[in-house]
Amino acid sequence: MRLSKITEGLIGQPMFKLLVKMQEKERTGKKLYHFEIGDSDYPAPSHVVKSVKKALDEDRTHYVDSTGICEFKEAIREHIARRLGFRPALKQILVMPSNAIIDFVVRCTADPADEIIYPDPGFSTYIAVTSYTGVKKVGVPILESHKFHIQPEEIEKRITPRTKLIILNSPSNPTGAALNRDTIMEVGLIAKKHNLYLLSDEIYSKVIYDGIKHYSSSELDHCQERTIILDGFAKGYSMPGFRLGYAIGPESVIEKMGLLFQTIFSCFPPFIQYGGISALTECPADVEERVETYGRLRDLIYEKLNAMPGISCLKPEGAVYIFPNISGTGMSSQEFVEFALDKANVVLLSGTCFGTEGEGYVRLCYTRKPEMIIEAMDRLKKALEERKNGEDFNKRHNLAGRRTSCRG
Amino acid sequence: MRLSKITEGLIGQPMFKLLVKMQEKERTGKKLYHFEIGDSDYPAPSHVVKSVKKALDEDRTHYVDSTGICEFKEAIREHIARRLGFRPALKQILVMPSNAIIDFVVRCTADPADEIIYPDPGFSTYIAVTSYTGVKKVGVPILESHKFHIQPEEIEKRITPRTKLIILNSPSNPTGAALNRDTIMEVGLIAKKHNLYLLSDEIYSKVIYDGIKHYSSSELDHCQERTIILDGFAKGYSMPGFRLGYAIGPESVIEKMGLLFQTIFSCFPPFIQYGGISALTECPADVEERVETYGRLRDLIYEKLNAMPGISCLKPEGAVYIFPNISGTGMSSQEFVEFALDKANVVLLSGTCFGTEGEGYVRLCYTRKPEMIIEAMDRLKKALEERKNGEDFNKRHNLAGRRTSCRG
Repeated sequence: MRLSKITEGLIGQPMFKLLVKMQEKERTGKKLYHFEIGDSDYPAPSHVVKSVKKALDEDRTHYVDSTGICEFKEAIREHIARRLGFRPALKQILVMPSNAIIDFVVRCTADPADEIIYPDPGFSTYIAVTSYTGVKKVGVPILESHKFHIQPEEIEKRITPRTKLIILNSPSNPTGAALNRDTIMEVGLIAKKHNLYLLSDEIYSKVIYDGIKHYSSSELDHCQERTIILDGFAKGYSMPGFRLGYAIGPESVIEKMGLLFQTIFSCFPPFIQYGGISALTECPADVEERVETYGRLRDLIYEKLNAMPGISCLKPEGAVYIFPNISGTGMSSQEFVEFALDKANVVLLSGTCFGTEGEGYVRLCYTRKPEMIIEAMDRLKKALEERKNGEDFNKRHNLAGRRTSCRG
Repeated sequence: MRLSKITEGLIGQPMFKLLVKMQEKERTGKKLYHFEIGDSDYPAPSHVVKSVKKALDEDRTHYVDSTGICEFKEAIREHIARRLGFRPALKQILVMPSNAIIDFVVRCTADPADEIIYPDPGFSTYIAVTSYTGVKKVGVPILESHKFHIQPEEIEKRITPRTKLIILNSPSNPTGAALNRDTIMEVGLIAKKHNLYLLSDEIYSKVIYDGIKHYSSSELDHCQERTIILDGFAKGYSMPGFRLGYAIGPESVIEKMGLLFQTIFSCFPPFIQYGGISALTECPADVEERVETYGRLRDLIYEKLNAMPGISCLKPEGAVYIFPNISGTGMSSQEFVEFALDKANVVLLSGTCFGTEGEGYVRLCYTRKPEMIIEAMDRLKKALEERKNGEDFNKRHNLAGRRTSCRG
């Protein structure tokens, strides 16, 4: 029987498809080095686990306010006050899985044939959502020549009367760029000028290095007019499996998103929300310590990758990814991913998973144990060197392989 | 700024709106008797809580297969084998919140302007989903004169070339009817004849009384062709706040639903899934004991309601609700709800929350402590008797009030 049209364009998140495939391979005993998924080798903070367990013991397992329990929303408000300097009304806050916020914001602000502007390369859900909502996706190229910083004028150029929403993500997935205040404010002012909603994906706001400060366009409107902040606990707090996040936005948007959430999900598990309270109130040192560790891992993988033939990469300013340019190897992104898996057992993602502008790049998530990073990168380097020596040998002896000649 | 059209029809689930309002009132110190929400005064099974806590301790807090962890899907498969006599493939199983299954099935099977047939009165999400998907809702009246059992011929009458899906729910919310095998199979055969999908909402399959057996249209196709089973842990296992459920359906439908789930939610919290394994494998006696308790509570509230002036009700065969006919009181459903709250502090839901055919009825969820049921029902009875005495007095003295005369 025919399924609906909205599902035709659905391809899923690349890392989850790979996750299943890799787990199947690993069951056969092959040791793989995983850099594909935005997970962390580090456990959730012990305070958080303790609070969730306590809430379970206290029978916090019943239905609750579908917008989030009051105590958690109050903790979020105080956290935002500390982090961004304004105190949102409780009615501006909605507790829900971070990833779902993207789907909900798009559905609540844009009708089919309306347009949303998003960074390309950018998080794959930005693109996926447009495949089943009938909303038109308009990508803004994010260029290495601009250190992967979005150019506000490139956004404004793409605004039409059908544009409803701009998606901004800093620190950025997959590039690791952290936008400066000028850029963020300029985008905020463009949204204001054209009366557009602005989804500010700040899921990596806590993971930022070298003393760089995180900025948010909510500085302009305190989320009362157009800015909808997406934040959560998967990254900074190493709590990916909790699926806990929150949106802060204009009351009218949050009310609609809340109704949609209530209709589809009833409410968010209350005992997990108590874990969120603990994360926001008990563990600031945990986060700092973790980010310091991540910074060291970034340095490590950055050095390792830049020492490989045909690879160059910028130093990420935030988030948990590095986005090396692999075009010097002569391979396409997909070819490189297959090469890394076949020759070095290293699993990573093609830059094209994040949009057409990702060609020539691959993404690695480096929140792994340092010894694993070293082992994996040494294997990858060796494989690339062997490949290069083979190519050089072929060139010297004029033995260009079929593959090379095919590519001209 | 204008929000999208899809949100215009959204009104949310009535019980959650009431939940918030009531919690606000209670903060002022008023004691209310809650019968509005399909929650239970009984805690989640201790085995389940123990398993979730163990999984948290074992760091089961990372990303996992977005369709559900393998061990849980295997436990579901064995549970279905025991319950329904067939063993679905793992690819026919998707772990996700039960309520969201309704939204996902509708979105994956029906395009805007397609039609879905659902029971009226029926669970409010059936109707809500149509408000934002552009899918046309076609209600089948569920009549007290037929003991609230759906009439298959009334379904077939409403099938058009645009019909894509039939929703069936047994035991039923809000009526408590449990459909017999003939009815279920007849609906299954109608779906087969017209090549339609069939969403079998079996969330109350375990809550069924008096030795009545639960039947499922999956008997006809083992969920390989058209039947999509919705089940979960909120009701039979008293685990509403876990938001844990699963769908079983044809591989093509489950694959699409899985991609949608992955895109929007990434995956379901793994540590909760371990609680699901425990529920399915460790606590069968817990469920039986709980259902026995619920059966006694049903008897209690049934007797109490039938002893009130102007009220009559059928004995529910399953689920956790009773759906009394209040038309003998002369009040509309909404008036009755307000009366019960004002005069007896009893919170219940208008039958119209479940569709236009719910007028003349109210819904009470009776999985409460027996002493609370007795106290609340005695208050409601007293209030109705006082009202009746007042009316009788007015009638005897020809003092019909404005309100009565307004209604003619």
